[in-house]
Amino acid sequence: MSVDGDEIKNVHGPDHPNSVGWTKAQKITLYEDEANPLVLEAGGKLTAIETEYETYGRLNDSASNAILICHALTGDAHAAGWDLEPSGSLREYRKKKPGWWDSMVGPGKAIDTNRFYVICANVLGSCYGTTGPSSLNHETGRPWGLSFPVVTVGDWAQTQMELLTRLGVHKLRSVIGGSMGGQIALEMGLAYPQRVGSMIILSAGHRVTTQGLAFNAVGRHAIINDPNFNSGDYYGGPQPIAGLAAARMMAQITYLSEESMGYKFGRRLRGKDSLDFTLTGIEFEMESYLSHQAESFVRRYDANSYLYITRAMDYYEAAEKWGQGDLTKTAALIQAKTMVVSFSSDWLFPPDLCRELVSAMCRAGCPVSYVNIPSRYGHDAFLVETEAVRRLITIFLRD
Amino acid sequence: MSVDGDEIKNVHGPDHPNSVGWTKAQKITLYEDEANPLVLEAGGKLTAIETEYETYGRLNDSASNAILICHALTGDAHAAGWDLEPSGSLREYRKKKPGWWDSMVGPGKAIDTNRFYVICANVLGSCYGTTGPSSLNHETGRPWGLSFPVVTVGDWAQTQMELLTRLGVHKLRSVIGGSMGGQIALEMGLAYPQRVGSMIILSAGHRVTTQGLAFNAVGRHAIINDPNFNSGDYYGGPQPIAGLAAARMMAQITYLSEESMGYKFGRRLRGKDSLDFTLTGIEFEMESYLSHQAESFVRRYDANSYLYITRAMDYYEAAEKWGQGDLTKTAALIQAKTMVVSFSSDWLFPPDLCRELVSAMCRAGCPVSYVNIPSRYGHDAFLVETEAVRRLITIFLRD
Repeated sequence: MSVDGDEIKNVHGPDHPNSVGWTKAQKITLYEDEANPLVLEAGGKLTAIETEYETYGRLNDSASNAILICHALTGDAHAAGWDLEPSGSLREYRKKKPGWWDSMVGPGKAIDTNRFYVICANVLGSCYGTTGPSSLNHETGRPWGLSFPVVTVGDWAQTQMELLTRLGVHKLRSVIGGSMGGQIALEMGLAYPQRVGSMIILSAGHRVTTQGLAFNAVGRHAIINDPNFNSGDYYGGPQPIAGLAAARMMAQITYLSEESMGYKFGRRLRGKDSLDFTLTGIEFEMESYLSHQAESFVRRYDANSYLYITRAMDYYEAAEKWGQGDLTKTAALIQAKTMVVSFSSDWLFPPDLCRELVSAMCRAGCPVSYVNIPSRYGHDAFLVETEAVRRLITIFLRD
Repeated sequence: MSVDGDEIKNVHGPDHPNSVGWTKAQKITLYEDEANPLVLEAGGKLTAIETEYETYGRLNDSASNAILICHALTGDAHAAGWDLEPSGSLREYRKKKPGWWDSMVGPGKAIDTNRFYVICANVLGSCYGTTGPSSLNHETGRPWGLSFPVVTVGDWAQTQMELLTRLGVHKLRSVIGGSMGGQIALEMGLAYPQRVGSMIILSAGHRVTTQGLAFNAVGRHAIINDPNFNSGDYYGGPQPIAGLAAARMMAQITYLSEESMGYKFGRRLRGKDSLDFTLTGIEFEMESYLSHQAESFVRRYDANSYLYITRAMDYYEAAEKWGQGDLTKTAALIQAKTMVVSFSSDWLFPPDLCRELVSAMCRAGCPVSYVNIPSRYGHDAFLVETEAVRRLITIFLRD
């Protein structure tokens, strides 16, 4: 996601009564028992999966107030509050940064930590504290790199459910996710109908569009063909920064809309009144923004993780997996009360795609509500349109 | 552009009566006289500009039947017929390939070479036969690389007009261009109102969108940051192939539409019935298509030319240049009878942008007609929707 600090509304300092305050990421090792490994959908097994997560609020005695939040592509477990102890260089960026959904999670906020026990866990394959390709493979003593097994949205649902079990949560009050997080939320509703009370799916669908598939493919191509990629074995050497930067900048464009970019940047020049006619330098604010985003991204994100996670998004097709291609048959598996929210200018998970899912759920008789929010912010709208999203989530969670 | 052979309609073999037959690129040296160099808009001068062009049909006695066709970003002078003598490795791809607009240019075709003398010239800065960054700088005996001066759409208009003068054409019957070629056509109408009888502008506008600016910026960023770029001095060494491929693949997505990609590729797998779960290999037809496009592109195109030409597109803003930001004032300079054609699913030069230009021309009292063609082919539509375009051009050129 590309949301800048100044666009995030309703973010409070750690001392504000509506903030969850200082937070500390927790670690848990899942599938420790070698006899009971995680069996991956794409083949292979994993044991001893270190998983980073944060929790806010308290689990009630009946363990009925848990809400799982699923993060987006390059997100992490730090959804709310202010991180107390950034650990590891990849995560240094967190310093002085609120959680990525602090606008929504806190005491008295839409996902009210006075009422709910909120969990957010980093996904398998990431580089933000959960086992992934940059983690040490204890069998070899070296980072996994591309020998890390391929992970899927189904694996994420499975590992997150395992975490919930370990935390004493048998049934979720709700699972909530935007973008890739929405894919995970949907998958949880499909894979664990008994354990998911309700779902909120924002800016997401049962599959990526062909265009989304294409953009992800180009991003991976740029990384894999970077002369420094070295078949994914670049740890300790020069990193495939150029490829990762290209992937990120391109993705960044898909998170915005022409309207929001036109409004925010247009053709405005960067710090000057007239063109320099420089081929390799920065002329436009738009360029400066993208370069800056890429620079900060390549410092904090692992290129291999980018490959694994975008591949998982691309692979996901709920109807293929659950209904032999029939989305209505697929939707019939869902028992959770569901709200789907799309945004008018989102072209990565466009409203039409969301409506495909909603229509199938209606045909299947699922209790589903759907809102298409008029917004100029493109895919990022689910993070930027805080007022509208806040209101919808508040009402949905009220009952 | 990304048009595949099978999508090009109305292309005839060299022996067909509607084909211009075998063609041979011609060369001319413009601005040979050191006392009268080309003075570039962005600063600097150039002399002895070798320019590659093709002509079809014959100039009539009154020199009143000339039509200039302006090519798009990665196009060349070979607009129609079959190239007889491909010269230079970058141009090998032409072999057995018809000109890029063979569907429209030939005896009895929309741009009828029985009636018109048709000229198409490769733009300054290209790598297809006209002087550009990969050409030898005769002062140093080495390729120009980034020491080549920055070129603009205005420079292209100027050099093409110089070529026309040399060919004995004082006034064009018409100038026709799509995409970047449409930018050049518009600029010719603005810069040489007395010398342009009419204009046809397809899928183009008075500026690129902010999104277009962003995509071009990412493409250049990928090239410039490729570890093999070597500040543009890569001739004879390893080429910045990864960066150029990323730029091309990304651009390719912007030439298509979600609908056309969904229709043509969807989620179809490449040569198999089930996923391989391969991180770095090809799974989807969509990926295969993009990879294939990139592979063929990096063999035939020069990365530095890509930088120069996309920059020129980005720099162009007709209203800033001609009307102090006022598009109506700008349009008032045009004397050519004009037709603007947009395509409903084009999101690189979207219909709204074309309508901005058309509205300004209406306000300025210009004789302008405008058609928005319903099409699912995105930006490529101007090359793919041959029937609709053929009909419009035929009628426009009839009078």
